[in-house]
Amino acid sequence: MIVLGIDPGSRITGYGVVENSGNRLVHIDNGAIFTDTAPDFPGRLKTIFDGLMEIIARYHPDQVAVENIFFATNPQSALKLGQARGAAIVAAVHCGLPVAEYSALQVKQAVVGQGRAEKGQVQKMVRALLGLPEIAQPDASDALAVAICHINSYGLTQISALTSRSNKLKTSWRDIKL
Amino acid sequence: MIVLGIDPGSRITGYGVVENSGNRLVHIDNGAIFTDTAPDFPGRLKTIFDGLMEIIARYHPDQVAVENIFFATNPQSALKLGQARGAAIVAAVHCGLPVAEYSALQVKQAVVGQGRAEKGQVQKMVRALLGLPEIAQPDASDALAVAICHINSYGLTQISALTSRSNKLKTSWRDIKL
Repeated sequence: MIVLGIDPGSRITGYGVVENSGNRLVHIDNGAIFTDTAPDFPGRLKTIFDGLMEIIARYHPDQVAVENIFFATNPQSALKLGQARGAAIVAAVHCGLPVAEYSALQVKQAVVGQGRAEKGQVQKMVRALLGLPEIAQPDASDALAVAICHINSYGLTQISALTSRSNKLKTSWRDIKL
Repeated sequence: MIVLGIDPGSRITGYGVVENSGNRLVHIDNGAIFTDTAPDFPGRLKTIFDGLMEIIARYHPDQVAVENIFFATNPQSALKLGQARGAAIVAAVHCGLPVAEYSALQVKQAVVGQGRAEKGQVQKMVRALLGLPEIAQPDASDALAVAICHINSYGLTQISALTSRSNKLKTSWRDIKL
């Protein structure tokens, strides 16, 4: 099963593609869609939609996971974020893909093992679980985190079995010093 | 020129199709897309996107107009509204249509002639300008209002020429008792 995780934003939308192969996680791709060059806000939404459609066409994910936002600093930024999120989710549902939503607490719980983890801890754990020396974009890392959360929550991989054997990194979340 | 006006909402999305034919406004269609039957929130966004794609395929509008929201009661409702708005705008840009955004003040100014008009005044004026005995949905009326605003702002029709000759109703906004 291939999962596309998305971290939507009106300026930067992160994406992460992770495969659950047997009982292991395999990193396929991660990156970010930048909307700065769009001429206006509808153009930004088009960039997000088109960018994700391209990712979906390239990797044929079976499912999509997005972090659920329960708060925002103010209604104006919530409106912008909401529109970016709407554009991202529509790209998925337009391709017939089911979309699962997870709270930040659920993502932290699934990736680090506790819901109060710091952002830096989550990023380190995502790198370790997928055997990546670095992840260029924090938004891409967040997108990978929600993809990992979905694979775990979906019951296909137990969190203790989250090891990336493909690159000989035998690490479970319990072994990592954060 | 045919304009599709949209009033997005996560429960009800209103739409209104108005043609600017020569120097007159011709009502083509109006209605609402209800998302209540969708199984989840991504499903609601799909319903909005698919519904508007169908409207666009049916009437081939040249341009799309959406009311710009500058405030919301709280971040949570702003997020929901934002996502619905994102789904609606993506339907337009995916079809290659330009999307214009107008503030509530601009819409009231264009339709009623003053920015502080009450909602009921705007609805009456929309009916009068398009020669419609009634408009079933308030959201559809709002969508028609933003379409009229766009036609007026686009400089194709002066507000004083906003008459619906197709049904012999010779009325300008100055003649109507609100």
